[in-house]
Amino acid sequence: MNSVHQIIYAKWLMTCEPNNKVLENHALIIHDGVIKDILPSKEVSLHYQSNEVHEYSTHAVMPGFVNTHTHLAMSFFRGLADDLSLMDWLNNHIWPAENAWVREEFVYDASLFAMAEMIRSGTTCFNDMYFFLQATARAADVAGIRGRIGITVIGFPTAWAKTSDEYIAKGLEFYAEYKQHPRIGATFAPHAIYTETEATLIKIRDLAEKHNLKINMHIQETADEVNQSMSQTKLRPLRRLNDIGFVSPRLIAVHMTQIDEEDLEIISAQKPQIVHCPESNMKLASGSCPVTTLQKLGINVALGTDSVASNNDLNMLAEMRSAAYHSKLITSNPEALNAYEVLTMATLNGAKALGIDHVTGSLSKNKSADFIAINLDEIETLPVYHPASQIVYAASRSQVTDVWVAGKQLMKNRVLLTLDEGELKKKAHYWFNKINQS
Amino acid sequence: MNSVHQIIYAKWLMTCEPNNKVLENHALIIHDGVIKDILPSKEVSLHYQSNEVHEYSTHAVMPGFVNTHTHLAMSFFRGLADDLSLMDWLNNHIWPAENAWVREEFVYDASLFAMAEMIRSGTTCFNDMYFFLQATARAADVAGIRGRIGITVIGFPTAWAKTSDEYIAKGLEFYAEYKQHPRIGATFAPHAIYTETEATLIKIRDLAEKHNLKINMHIQETADEVNQSMSQTKLRPLRRLNDIGFVSPRLIAVHMTQIDEEDLEIISAQKPQIVHCPESNMKLASGSCPVTTLQKLGINVALGTDSVASNNDLNMLAEMRSAAYHSKLITSNPEALNAYEVLTMATLNGAKALGIDHVTGSLSKNKSADFIAINLDEIETLPVYHPASQIVYAASRSQVTDVWVAGKQLMKNRVLLTLDEGELKKKAHYWFNKINQS
Repeated sequence: MNSVHQIIYAKWLMTCEPNNKVLENHALIIHDGVIKDILPSKEVSLHYQSNEVHEYSTHAVMPGFVNTHTHLAMSFFRGLADDLSLMDWLNNHIWPAENAWVREEFVYDASLFAMAEMIRSGTTCFNDMYFFLQATARAADVAGIRGRIGITVIGFPTAWAKTSDEYIAKGLEFYAEYKQHPRIGATFAPHAIYTETEATLIKIRDLAEKHNLKINMHIQETADEVNQSMSQTKLRPLRRLNDIGFVSPRLIAVHMTQIDEEDLEIISAQKPQIVHCPESNMKLASGSCPVTTLQKLGINVALGTDSVASNNDLNMLAEMRSAAYHSKLITSNPEALNAYEVLTMATLNGAKALGIDHVTGSLSKNKSADFIAINLDEIETLPVYHPASQIVYAASRSQVTDVWVAGKQLMKNRVLLTLDEGELKKKAHYWFNKINQS
Repeated sequence: MNSVHQIIYAKWLMTCEPNNKVLENHALIIHDGVIKDILPSKEVSLHYQSNEVHEYSTHAVMPGFVNTHTHLAMSFFRGLADDLSLMDWLNNHIWPAENAWVREEFVYDASLFAMAEMIRSGTTCFNDMYFFLQATARAADVAGIRGRIGITVIGFPTAWAKTSDEYIAKGLEFYAEYKQHPRIGATFAPHAIYTETEATLIKIRDLAEKHNLKINMHIQETADEVNQSMSQTKLRPLRRLNDIGFVSPRLIAVHMTQIDEEDLEIISAQKPQIVHCPESNMKLASGSCPVTTLQKLGINVALGTDSVASNNDLNMLAEMRSAAYHSKLITSNPEALNAYEVLTMATLNGAKALGIDHVTGSLSKNKSADFIAINLDEIETLPVYHPASQIVYAASRSQVTDVWVAGKQLMKNRVLLTLDEGELKKKAHYWFNKINQS
């Protein structure tokens, strides 16, 4: 009889791998923050005992969501400017607001607020791109969530850094500081091809190789971006990036709503990671990432919400549903991107994109205990013929009752355990009053 | 000083008409189930007093949603068969299940269950199309919700009726029985052109005129439907319906995902009501209703969820968001269908489609007190720059705290007042066990 830290009983275990197996009345055995075993509930008492037992008797227990593209500290700009085109929205609303408000304290408060929203909707791992990286990391440390924080590099000055070299230097300081952290790490995050010089991109390419870091970047988010590149260089952004050796499995290409045959050839050959952000792309009318075409080519496609300023939430449950609807609509095929496929995109594929699928992204032995419980015994998700269908097509974020990262419980029966909801709301009101009255 | 039944204080009143006005710190004065006055909160005590005062101090108070296309009693088929094409889904899954299970008791239980879901997500009025009309009406009577129940006519036998004449005769009995009901009424609901004869449609046309009833019908839901009509008659379904005088403001044309220039001419001339069901249409990959094109022609476009078997919920908040995303995507215009427009589609336009906009659909003097309160003081919807944006793009159904129909409170702080949630869940499990084991 083995004594273990936690035993988690579940009505349904959505393992995600192998083959999206759904195990009914099974248990997770957790020790030292790691999944040690998965077995039928009725066999648990033959092998394991624990002082900490959790019964999710009407719940689906599944890997936490991996939100593979976010700008967390924009959470206090939620709903500031809607129903506008990307460049109008950026130039006339978002960048001026950022210029006025984005400082260390703001980034900490807004990121912590975003993490509360993520935990409350079942996200256990994020991939961020913003400024004041240590502020975001401190927030993630407090919240207990897992994350990758982008070393943002953008070709104009902000309160965080003035030049590309300063962005890179500050980013590398952050990387060194958090190199040993069990949950938090760095990626490179050049903003976009239209805000960088080729020289800076080549420098980032070499540094990313040296430190073995992923590079995530907005690429071909809109037709405007492609057209601008074509008129300046006669080449599409992805082609230009490929020409400098930027396109590889190390690259996390975010959005990719404009893909032509030449792009598909590059993608097929170089196998970058792709992040689909359907709600942001639909809301800003940016275009459509051809997810099922990419999947047929064996490309790893993950899912991200983008920021709440263009979504307007960080809800991966809703993002899954939108991804399924979006793919069925653009392919005219109702079988495209079924519930199991979209669950995998929102979990395991995100971990793969970040290169941490040996740690998280599925319920598998020896992976970190990063999981969530979704109560399906609600009016809105009964009856349950297929739990994956109910999760993707009917459940709402309020049905996520419990969230765990690395064996630590972050939410219990809808109550946040690492964060103070009342304090977070006060901060939101504090910043709203400053921003709204300016 | 007037003594009134209820005074409702709201942080924000989303009136919907005129001009989508948002009133901050205003109150609704309710007497005998009707909105008697709307005035600034601080002026209330000068004019009104009441023994029943409700303070929605962090809420948006808005007209309840009008779900303009539903098949409520399919709620126990939620998630039975997903990720399939319309005809496969209908022929091989839904119609066999209906054939096996749809009887009076089933329709009552499943409709009541659906009404609980609707109330919990802020819907105060529905437009249904199903069988065993009295069972649905009895459920609506118990639930306290407002609704229109379709006199379904379909060209094959069911447990409800064997022939078109029997469907019509039973429907007219229902109509007569509920003619004087304050909240419940009838429409005609021929299922679709491919399940009816022209003779039956002409009969329905004349009866609808005689009794002044709306006619709602699935029209041009898929390309298959249009192609089948073209190959049989060389005419599109809408053209055939127009040729028999079926297309008029009396007609509620549901789906209309296939619209060509000839259709637009007919629609412009005859001004039918159109119901857009974006989630069902995307999930079944049926096609796209061109909402903004129709709006520019001055056509009234309302919003419906369709049944949970193809959605998979009855959540009008999510349907609004999907409608906005869908229109922006298919028009490549991020300004298409903004938050205010989609709020109006989901409320007032539904009431207009049903011909009851003198009774419900907006917060206006002398309309019925059919309204909901949505708490925006949650992590997911803070801060609030524009309440309409937060409602459409960020709020979830669990933020609907209170629901009122005709001055009667149906939900208070998330607790159903007319229905027993525990009993409803037991019924869902009871029917699940029967259906799943068969």
